[in-house]
Formats: sequence, C-alpha cells, structure tokens
Amino acid sequence: MGEGRVEVQRINFPELAEPNGRIAEHGVILRVVSTNICGSDQHMVRGRTTAPVGLVLGHEITGEVIEAGRDVLTLEEGDLVSVPFNVACGRCPMCKAQNTGVCLSVNPARAGGAYGYVDMGGWIGGQAEYVMIPYADFNLLKFPDRDQALAKIRDLTCLSDILPTGYHGAVTAGVGPGATVYVAGAGPVGMAAAAASRLLGAAVTIVGDVNAARLAHARQVGFETVNLSNDASLGEQIVAILGEPEVDCAIDCVGFEARGHGHAGAQAEAPATVLNALMEVTRVAGRIGIPGLYVTDDPGAVDDAARRGSLSVRLGLGWAKSHSFFTGQTPVMKYNRNLMQAILWDRLKIADVVNVQVISLDKAPEGYALFDSGVPQKFVIVSMST
Amino acid sequence: MGEGRVEVQRINFPELAEPNGRIAEHGVILRVVSTNICGSDQHMVRGRTTAPVGLVLGHEITGEVIEAGRDVLTLEEGDLVSVPFNVACGRCPMCKAQNTGVCLSVNPARAGGAYGYVDMGGWIGGQAEYVMIPYADFNLLKFPDRDQALAKIRDLTCLSDILPTGYHGAVTAGVGPGATVYVAGAGPVGMAAAAASRLLGAAVTIVGDVNAARLAHARQVGFETVNLSNDASLGEQIVAILGEPEVDCAIDCVGFEARGHGHAGAQAEAPATVLNALMEVTRVAGRIGIPGLYVTDDPGAVDDAARRGSLSVRLGLGWAKSHSFFTGQTPVMKYNRNLMQAILWDRLKIADVVNVQVISLDKAPEGYALFDSGVPQKFVIVSMST
Amino acid sequence: MGEGRVEVQRINFPELAEPNGRIAEHGVILRVVSTNICGSDQHMVRGRTTAPVGLVLGHEITGEVIEAGRDVLTLEEGDLVSVPFNVACGRCPMCKAQNTGVCLSVNPARAGGAYGYVDMGGWIGGQAEYVMIPYADFNLLKFPDRDQALAKIRDLTCLSDILPTGYHGAVTAGVGPGATVYVAGAGPVGMAAAAASRLLGAAVTIVGDVNAARLAHARQVGFETVNLSNDASLGEQIVAILGEPEVDCAIDCVGFEARGHGHAGAQAEAPATVLNALMEVTRVAGRIGIPGLYVTDDPGAVDDAARRGSLSVRLGLGWAKSHSFFTGQTPVMKYNRNLMQAILWDRLKIADVVNVQVISLDKAPEGYALFDSGVPQKFVIVSMST
Amino acid sequence: MGEGRVEVQRINFPELAEPNGRIAEHGVILRVVSTNICGSDQHMVRGRTTAPVGLVLGHEITGEVIEAGRDVLTLEEGDLVSVPFNVACGRCPMCKAQNTGVCLSVNPARAGGAYGYVDMGGWIGGQAEYVMIPYADFNLLKFPDRDQALAKIRDLTCLSDILPTGYHGAVTAGVGPGATVYVAGAGPVGMAAAAASRLLGAAVTIVGDVNAARLAHARQVGFETVNLSNDASLGEQIVAILGEPEVDCAIDCVGFEARGHGHAGAQAEAPATVLNALMEVTRVAGRIGIPGLYVTDDPGAVDDAARRGSLSVRLGLGWAKSHSFFTGQTPVMKYNRNLMQAILWDRLKIADVVNVQVISLDKAPEGYALFDSGVPQKFVIVSMST
Repeated sequence: MGEGRVEVQRINFPELAEPNGRIAEHGVILRVVSTNICGSDQHMVRGRTTAPVGLVLGHEITGEVIEAGRDVLTLEEGDLVSVPFNVACGRCPMCKAQNTGVCLSVNPARAGGAYGYVDMGGWIGGQAEYVMIPYADFNLLKFPDRDQALAKIRDLTCLSDILPTGYHGAVTAGVGPGATVYVAGAGPVGMAAAAASRLLGAAVTIVGDVNAARLAHARQVGFETVNLSNDASLGEQIVAILGEPEVDCAIDCVGFEARGHGHAGAQAEAPATVLNALMEVTRVAGRIGIPGLYVTDDPGAVDDAARRGSLSVRLGLGWAKSHSFFTGQTPVMKYNRNLMQAILWDRLKIADVVNVQVISLDKAPEGYALFDSGVPQKFVIVSMST
Repeated sequence: MGEGRVEVQRINFPELAEPNGRIAEHGVILRVVSTNICGSDQHMVRGRTTAPVGLVLGHEITGEVIEAGRDVLTLEEGDLVSVPFNVACGRCPMCKAQNTGVCLSVNPARAGGAYGYVDMGGWIGGQAEYVMIPYADFNLLKFPDRDQALAKIRDLTCLSDILPTGYHGAVTAGVGPGATVYVAGAGPVGMAAAAASRLLGAAVTIVGDVNAARLAHARQVGFETVNLSNDASLGEQIVAILGEPEVDCAIDCVGFEARGHGHAGAQAEAPATVLNALMEVTRVAGRIGIPGLYVTDDPGAVDDAARRGSLSVRLGLGWAKSHSFFTGQTPVMKYNRNLMQAILWDRLKIADVVNVQVISLDKAPEGYALFDSGVPQKFVIVSMST
Repeated sequence: MGEGRVEVQRINFPELAEPNGRIAEHGVILRVVSTNICGSDQHMVRGRTTAPVGLVLGHEITGEVIEAGRDVLTLEEGDLVSVPFNVACGRCPMCKAQNTGVCLSVNPARAGGAYGYVDMGGWIGGQAEYVMIPYADFNLLKFPDRDQALAKIRDLTCLSDILPTGYHGAVTAGVGPGATVYVAGAGPVGMAAAAASRLLGAAVTIVGDVNAARLAHARQVGFETVNLSNDASLGEQIVAILGEPEVDCAIDCVGFEARGHGHAGAQAEAPATVLNALMEVTRVAGRIGIPGLYVTDDPGAVDDAARRGSLSVRLGLGWAKSHSFFTGQTPVMKYNRNLMQAILWDRLKIADVVNVQVISLDKAPEGYALFDSGVPQKFVIVSMST
Repeated sequence: MGEGRVEVQRINFPELAEPNGRIAEHGVILRVVSTNICGSDQHMVRGRTTAPVGLVLGHEITGEVIEAGRDVLTLEEGDLVSVPFNVACGRCPMCKAQNTGVCLSVNPARAGGAYGYVDMGGWIGGQAEYVMIPYADFNLLKFPDRDQALAKIRDLTCLSDILPTGYHGAVTAGVGPGATVYVAGAGPVGMAAAAASRLLGAAVTIVGDVNAARLAHARQVGFETVNLSNDASLGEQIVAILGEPEVDCAIDCVGFEARGHGHAGAQAEAPATVLNALMEVTRVAGRIGIPGLYVTDDPGAVDDAARRGSLSVRLGLGWAKSHSFFTGQTPVMKYNRNLMQAILWDRLKIADVVNVQVISLDKAPEGYALFDSGVPQKFVIVSMST
C-alpha cells in the first residue's frame, strides 16, 4: 500500500480474463491452498522497485482448481496443482524451448511474466483467496495424489518458486557429484540452493551470510557456513573448511541489495560485492549461477549507476579465470516435475531446510515484517479451509 | 591357468617397460595396496573370452608409488594413488577428449587398454604384489592425504573401476534429481549403479536380479528390488512399486551373459533378454546406459550369432519409443576425482553398498569361487603390509 | 487402397474435431499448399506396415490458414504455415521437454502421433485439399513473409519432415565443424542428412547406396559417394576417399527395409546390414544417428524375428568401440524454426539437394510409382491455386 | 623494448628447459615456419599491460620439429605442427578436462600459460627463428601431410590462436544453424568469429566496428556490417538488416580497450560499452561469448576502476533478459583438430576472411605499426626458408 506497508484487503473474485481484458478460456480459477512470502516481494515492499501502490502480491502459489475455462483439456475441478511463478503462454518460441522465464506473449512491456509482480505483465497475485491462472494446461503441475500432496504441503509449496530457483542456481553453476559449492546468502533462496546442491551430489556446500541466526539454522540442517561479518576474509574461511581457498561452483542468492563484507562493510550496500567475491573464490573454469535478482531500475540504490542497474564488476578477474555467468528468472517448469518427484519420494526435505513457517492470510503483514527482520524462516500462508 | 582355474603364483618384479619392450620412463612401479576381483575377471575365468592361460589378472588397483621413471613429474615415492583400469596415453585425440576408454596408442590390436585383461594390450595385471603403471602423470589419481585414504581404503578401492563404471551407466542413462531408475543386475556393478543413481538425486532406484541373496542385500542398503525369478513380469513388479510400468532411466549392468527372466527363463542364457526388457520398461525418449560388457567374440555362447557378438535386439521397439543407447568401457578418469571427493566427504558409502569383503592375496582363488557362486559381495584383496 | 495401390479420391471437408470426435477449438483448417510424398508413405503402400486400406496419406504439409478454432490465439486467416509431421498437444511432459515426437496425448495406442500414418492416432493426412491441424498455436510454424515464402516453397516444403529428419540424424550423430560423416542411403532422407551435415560444418560427407542414379545426383550436389553394389567393401571405399577406413559420425537413413551390400547382397533384404556396417566404419566413441524407420511389426519381413521388429545386431562390436545410438521419430519443432531461417537466408538449398519435383495432386499415384522405382527425386504435390 | 617499440634482435638458440631452469625432456625445439602478430601483442606493445621490456613476443606459432626430448613419443624430426598458444601440461585436472587455457602447472603466478606473453609463465615467444615447446606430445597438432600443409600455410597458421579464439566465441555464444549473430569488432578475432559463425551454420552474421576499412573488407568476404561511427544506433542498424533489433547470439571480439559508439563516443575509451551494447541487442535467453581480452590490471586505463579491471556493467539489463556470459582464454586444443579438418577439406577460407598478409621477420616492426593503425589485415611472419 506504499513503501513498507502491506495490508490484507478484500478484492474481487477473479475472472477468466487476461490483464488486457481479453477472455481467457485457457485459464482456470484456483482456490489458493498456500502462498509464500518471497524475498522478491520484500524488494517491492521496501520501495526498491517501481511497483505501484495497491499491487496484490503473491507469485508462489499452490491451489485447487475450482473452475476451468472451456478450452482447458487436462484439468478438472478438485485437482491440486503447483503454479510456476512465471506466467507463460506455451505457444511462443521461448516457451517451446523451455525458456518460460522469458515468455514473449504474456507481458507487453518486456519478456517474462509473473503473478503479483512489478513490471511482469499485470497478472494479479495469489496472496488472496482465489487467483486466475492463464494457459492452465501448460502452466500447472498437477499433484498425482491429493491426500499425499496435502500431507506434504509444506514441502510442495516450495515448488512454485523458491526450490526451482535455488536449483536453477545450482544447475547453472555446474553443481554435480563431488563438487565443492559456495552459496552466497542464507535466506530462503540460498538455503534452497544449498538443498539443491546436496540433492545434486555436491561433496560439501558452504553457505555465507552476515546474519548469525540464519547461519545457525544453516548449520543445523547440515551445511558448512562462513560468517561474512567476521574479520577473516571469505577465502580464509573457505580454506579453514576445505583446505584451499576456492570452490568448484558458486551461486549468488543475494542479488542487487548486497551489502559489503566484514565488520564495516556489512553495514552499507555494495551492489557488486557478492559477484566480485564469487569470482575470487571460484576456481578457474568455474561457473557462477546468479538466481539472485538484479534489476534494470532501482529507485533506492546508493548511486546513479546502481539506480540504472549498472554495477562495478571485476570482469577482468572473471576473464582471467575463464568464468561463465548465468542470470535471469528461473524457468520453473523445466524443473518442477522432477523436484516434485524428489519430494514425494522423500529425497528432499526442503521445508525443513528453508524452515517453512505456516501462517494464516490475516497474519501476512506480520510475516512480512518478521521476514524483513532477517529471521531464518520462510513464511507460507496456508488457507484455513485446507 | 585354464578354464575355471585361478592360482597364486610368483611373478617377476615389474620393469619400467611397455608390453612391446620399449623403456617406459613415463611409468611408475606401485606396491599394490588393494586390488579387486571383478565380474569381468569372471568372464575370463569362465572361458567366455579368448584370454590365454597364465594371464595375470587384476585391473582394479590402488597402490603406493615405490619407484618413478625419469619423465614422471608429478608423483613421488610414497604417494598413494588410484589406478583407472583403462591404460591411457594422454597424448592421442581420444585421451585429449576424455575418452580414455578407447585410447588409440596403448593396444596394437584395437582401441582401449587395460591391466590384466584379454585383448587389452598385454599390460600385466595388479593381482600381484607390484605392478607397473605407464603414463603415470596422466593416469594416476593421487589421494590428498595418505592417512585419510588408508582409513577409507574399502571405499576408495572402488574408484579404479566398479564405482565409475556404475556411475557412467547412470550418467549415460540420464539419471538426475527426481528420476525413477531401473538397474538390471544386483552384482557389484549394478549396486554401484544404484549407489550412483542415489548420489545423482534419483527419486527411486529399483534393482532387478534372479539372485535372492543379492536382492536382499540391495533392500538392506535402501533400494527397491524386483525378483526376475518371479512369475510376475518386470513391468508388473515395477507397477507395484511406482504405480506405473515404466521408469525414466535404465541401466544394463548384466551384459552378454544374461539369462532369461521368469522361472524357466532364469535357467538358460538369453543374451538379448536384458536389453529387450529395458526397452519395454523405459519410458519414451528415455536413455539406456549399458556399462555391462558385450563382447565381439564369445567362445562359450549359446549360438553362432552370439559367438560373433550378434544379438537379436528388438530395435523396432526402441525406435518406436525414441530410445538412445550408450555402450563401452567407462572412461574412469572422467569421473574418479569427483567420486573421490564424494567419498572423502562421506556422501557415498560405496563399500557398504557393494558389500566389500577384504581378503588376502593367498585367498584370491576362494574369492573367485565365492563370487562366481553369486554371493552379494565384492572381494577386495588388500596387501597385508598396509 | 491396398498393397501397392494409391488413388486420388474425394474426401469430406475437414472439421475442427479430434479423431475421437471431440471438438477441437485448438485447431485450424488449412488449405494445403504443398504436401510431399515420403519414404515412410512407401513403407505403408508396400504393405510393410499394418496400415488399413483407405488411409488418407500425407504427413508433410505446408498450408494456409482458412479457419481457426476459438482457442487459437496466434494465427489468423491467410497465415502461411509449415506443419511438423508430429501431432503434438503442447501440454504433456514430453511436449514441454521438446520431445514432440512422443507426445503422450494425441494417440491412444502409443506415444507419438502423425497425420495420415499407420498407428499414429488416426489423424487424417494432408494429401488432400484441406486438412485439420490440432493444437495449432503449438504445432504450426508461421512463415514471416507470405510472398517470400511462396517464392521459396520448394525449399520450405521440406521443413515439415524430410529436412528436420535428416538434420536430427546429423545432430544426434554428433556432426559438427570438421567432422567426417557417412550417410547410409541416398534417398531423400539421406540427402537431407547430407545437406544438414554440410550446414553443420562437416569437413566431408560421404553418401552410400546401391542405386547408381541416386549416387550420381549426390555427387552432382557436392557430396562424396560410395556404391554399395561394388565388390569393394564400404571400408575400402571410405579409405579411398579419406585415407582411413572410419568416419567420425554415421547416420542410418535406410531403416528396416535395408538390403545387403555387394553384388549378391544387394538383391536380398538383410535388416541389420546397415547398422552393423555403420558400427564397422564409425570410429571409437562415435555416435550413430538412426532417423531411418525401424518398426515393431513388419508383416512383410524376411523372417519371424524381423516380423516382430527384432534384428541381429552386432552389439558386441558397437560396445567394443564405445558407440552410442539414437533412434526415434524426429521432434520437428525442435529444429524447424532455425532451419527455416537457414533457408530464408540462403544457407541451405535443400530443394536442390533432395531434387524436389513439383507435381499436382492428380499425378500423385505416378509420383508414388516413380519414387518407388528409386529415382533420385523427392515428389512434392503443390496445389494449383497457390 | 618499451612502450610502442618493437625490434628484431638476436636471441640464443632455445634449450629443452622450462622457464624455471628444469630440464624439459617432454619438449621439442621447433624451427618457426610462421608466426602471427596478434591484437594481444598490441595490448602489450601499447603499454596497456605490465609486460616487461625485452619480452620476446609471439604466441601464434607453426613450426617444424628439429629436436625432441627423451620423453617425446609421438613426434619426430621433420614433423610440421601447429602450436596452441596456451602452454599446457596435459597432467593437471584442468588439462584433463580440456580446459587447457587454465592449466594449473605451467605458470606459478596464476592458472594458464602462453608463449611470449605478459604474466603467462615466462615461456619465450615464437617471433624468432626457433622456439621450445614443452609437453610436446600433448600440445602439438601434427599436420597429416607436409606438402599439403605448406600449400595451405596461410590458413593453417590461423590455427594457433586467432581461428580457435573466434570459434570459441561463436560456440560459447551458442551459434548454430539458422542463428542470427552479431560480432562486435572487425579486427582479426572478429573476422575469425564471423568465419566461425558461418561454418557453424549461422543464417546471417553481422560485424560491427568504427573502422570503415575493416567493415569494407568484412562486406567483401560476405558479411553484413554496421558502422558504429554512424549516428544510427546499433539496434537501428540491426533492424535495417534483420527487420528486428535483436540477434540470437553475440560475440565480444573487442575486449577492454573498447571505445564508445557514435560520432563522439568513438573517440574516447569506454570500457564497458561493448558488453552493455551486446546486452541490448541480444535476445532474451541469449548467450554472449567474450573472447575479447579483459585484464585484471590495466596501467593505461581511463579511470581507477578500469585500472583494476572493474567495469560498469549493466548487469540488471542482462539479468532481465536471462543472458549468460562466457569469458576467458580459448582452450585451443579443444577445437584445433576439427578446424584443421575444415581447412584441409576447403570448408573454411580463414586466410581470406582475416586477410592474411605474409611478411618476413625483419619487417615485423612495420607489421606492428600497420596493424596498430587499424588496417583490415592479419600479419603473418613466414620464415624465408620454408
């Protein structure tokens, strides 16, 4: 409702229509079963984007089909589904090539759409009782068994964004069996990237942050940690764990609101800090996955360059080490079916790793406030009627 | 020493020389620390290859450097190393492209060399006290810490062949997070493939065999199993586990000595049984990894075609399902460093999974006999002086 | 209309309906602009499949949209489009992963659908004036400029099957810059595979066949050739061209109706001849692409095994050489946009390479007869009104 | 001999020894047959690196073996060979994984070695009569036929650096059949990247520069061009060619000495200009190959940040478009054998595309001066006695 303000309000029951008003017979109406509060929502709430007042937030949605448009062929009332946060048409060249994060049709302003998100096409968010999902046959992932799904809802709710996003970071960073991995950021995306790295077979996964509570939680669920508020450099702390100052793979789960390292640095924003640090600690020929969000316009940035999305990157260092860099919104659909399988077969306790806390919709404002304070928790709003 | 006979004999201390007599300053002499008995050795012992009498067996070797040729630059006395079973020169186009299983230089008869193995270049095997390893800088994987390595020798001894071979099967079959996997064969390669599938993130791994003891062991270390001696078909048994009759990925860890399925079939050899069954139970667009050995000449085969290495394959079925098939000796060097990392960081209890049994060299003949009887064990000959 | 008989008959104007009668608001009606006669059609006409009498043939279609269902969002009347021969729903896991050749929804009998094709879902073929295309937004490739497209229709008509199929063979065989390539079969698929290999940067492409006229055409459009009716072996003929008996990549564009090599062999069918020969002439660690069709049931086969789609494959040889094998219907959509670009920018004269001959629909029976006689031509039925 | 000064001097006949004095039995002495002047040499001559006075330049070498160390097994006197500019040991994990650009053994200061190059290990360059090449079996690419090779020496001389470097840029940018490609920079690396793009099947390749003579040459050898001195923006000029403002793939062949675009911009250095422009004109989910050199220390840079190798990169833009970025020294050995094949079979007229000009060693200083002036030529010093 303005910078720093989140309210619960009554909105209209959704219609089968696109933001431009066109009828959407390809869509369904979902009753929202669960919806998560995401760090990206935080960026918007903090005024660090150009999000308008009154935006209905919520792009991490799990729901139950209660109405289907006439052209929907594969879903019916009562189906329980996970909604990828990307809105995707399933008809454009990007969707056909699994790049659903940059669908060409669902957002007149640029490639890529999302629910309840600034500049992402005007699709209404899911932190509500009901939500309309377009191109439902293409977008939705149906859970094979309703009861089994409800029993694991704390884990499965992570399939809409956080888990695939961490996983995308790990995959693009080249994580595989035996790899040593450094994850920058112990928030939910970082913890999901760490969980994904473990699932992918990493030998050891190290999570770094300035937040001691988050690091304590990371250790508790089995990861190595480095505290970037310490005076010891990141490289020195990695040596203490691995015996050498570099890792095979690195994942930036912080993004553009990065703060500097060390006692002094941790206080002030230093937008390229994370990336530059990752180049230092990643071995030659390594890959750096960047699921953390970087934006084209940041009204609250520390300087003019950063306000335009420009950062002072030590590209010379990366080049000398033959690094490669992978950015962008995660194409959730590329991964969510396999990750669902991993959850259903108990290979991945993602809710424990990201520390899911279930709250009700009317407690959402408190959830935002707590999350913003840096608690090591992921807040999930679960509908009371489930 | 002839079909079915294995003896312990005294052989000469090895020289730094290639089989053709050329001096090998690029080689080292290893004291053998451990050496494993492999199913491929069994093929030779059973007279199912053209192996000559008097062959020194042993291509799964871990050892300690006791002498290095003048051109060896990176190794020194006392280093503990794992020896990939492939002999590779490190100079030909295949070695440069990581295809060390088909090195073009080390075997005048065909591509690819191995220690103590029929038709693989005449390199003397490692089921002995000492062994010569050529192109040592290229071939050997040095363990970073000697004490740590000796403490995990039961696991690390699996790096020379069995673990990378199972892993290669899993990788070529496309195993990744969330996959459902079927492994044909619960012998050591099959168990290694199952362990590898779990490390790679498989949702569920099913192992099939006709040997009840091996299947019991497989269940004990956490895998699902199907008993191919049962009257229920493979597909029916998979339905009972997965709810559907097909898996995403399949791995043939049996090879050319396959026996038919079912009560009657299990008695007689049926060389293409495994492959044809895998096409039935692998989903469309699936991949089939074939680390199990198929040979060009099989003197003991059931018919003329099989004697020439020809099998009656239901290619039409595979084609209708858009399958792909991956064969050949595993290029161990492509995988062993990462797998060593996974072992050293306790991500992979491979010795438990393949059920390593340590014996002394003088008990090797008994080990061969026991292994041939189908016990669910992998025999490793460990030097007494270690 | 029965074995060996093709007739032009009057059929009904198509409806927006699936074979099961369900209304298909996702479909369009096309006026057929061009439709090609394919070697796969030949298999059916010759009685080598279980195709029913009365089947409307034609799975290689280019057309103009004349009517669109309600759910079609991206196409309108007058659009000129290429139709991938695979019918694909765009909603199932296979379609989402670009495996449109094995769509799970469009054929109740098995995975994968096609127009006018036995066992492929009952979709009516395009060797007609009009044809219904389901899931049109997903399936159709729209040409960017109608006039430009009509001017290049002889080339663009190859996008529906023949060119992507040859290209898929080359891609799966690992063809890239500098590769030496052997293509088995100088029919249209073989010529398309050769053209694709050249586009992919192959150093030299060799085409083999028993048909002298086809080989003469292959040489005329710039490829090396080997005549398999000669007494010199395939390997010897390759030595004469390359100086060595093996190629990097091999593509089987013959399929299950293969005939033996050499003077005697060329007379009789020998179903596994091509595959076994490709293993001989492909270098170690090479890949073998198999776009040529192999079937699960072949009523006209030479023996019982072949009738069930079983072939006597020298798997032992392939295994010794670490080969991999890639089968199945080509997922056209994965390639057709890029190949269209290559045609529109004059990088690929596919019509000349496959020797497109334009005929009218009433001449189709003669086209079938001529094609069956082995002329080095690809027959394309072009609508008179275009 | 100091900033801007290149002299021909007499140096000692090389010894089989490493820079640290250790005997190098793994090395050979080559008589230099040809050696090229490279843009990277220019960076050093201009004082834009920390290169010491007296450095023997020359990292693009073709030569004849005149002496071989004891450990060399595959080469003999008289062999004609291409020398990858990377010095690589063939024994470290990076070399084994084809990352020869970042060999861990040949340079005590950092990963990666080169001949005659600042900070790259102290290996003596090849702009001389003789040169020592270490690890010769691993590093050298032998031409199959001496006479054929000498007849194509103008093309084959490009295999040591320029052609693989342009090719690496194209490959990492994802260039393949049908792609639209933009190459920043019409110098030799840019022209090689354009030639590589064409070989890889690109539909259309556009080269951009501020140098009209270079652009005229680019058009003459068949590429589209944009003149960055024009007032029309890069995007506008691309629209004029393609009908849309974006390409599929982009390659940065300029590196850290980039100048701004447009009339005014072209005068001044603007180190991140190229990268930022490439993000603008590359389509979503596109890849950006960066073979152009970026350095960790640039004593002649325009500002402090650039002196440390930091650039103001619009990462927010790249992230919004899901771009990926690929940097580093090209691992020549990964590509040179295939590219040699392409040259020997006349698929690639690289000498014409980069406009090779043959000069003698005593004319090298003039070559440097001319090249520095921006002529559209690649200077190759060919030994008179060849």
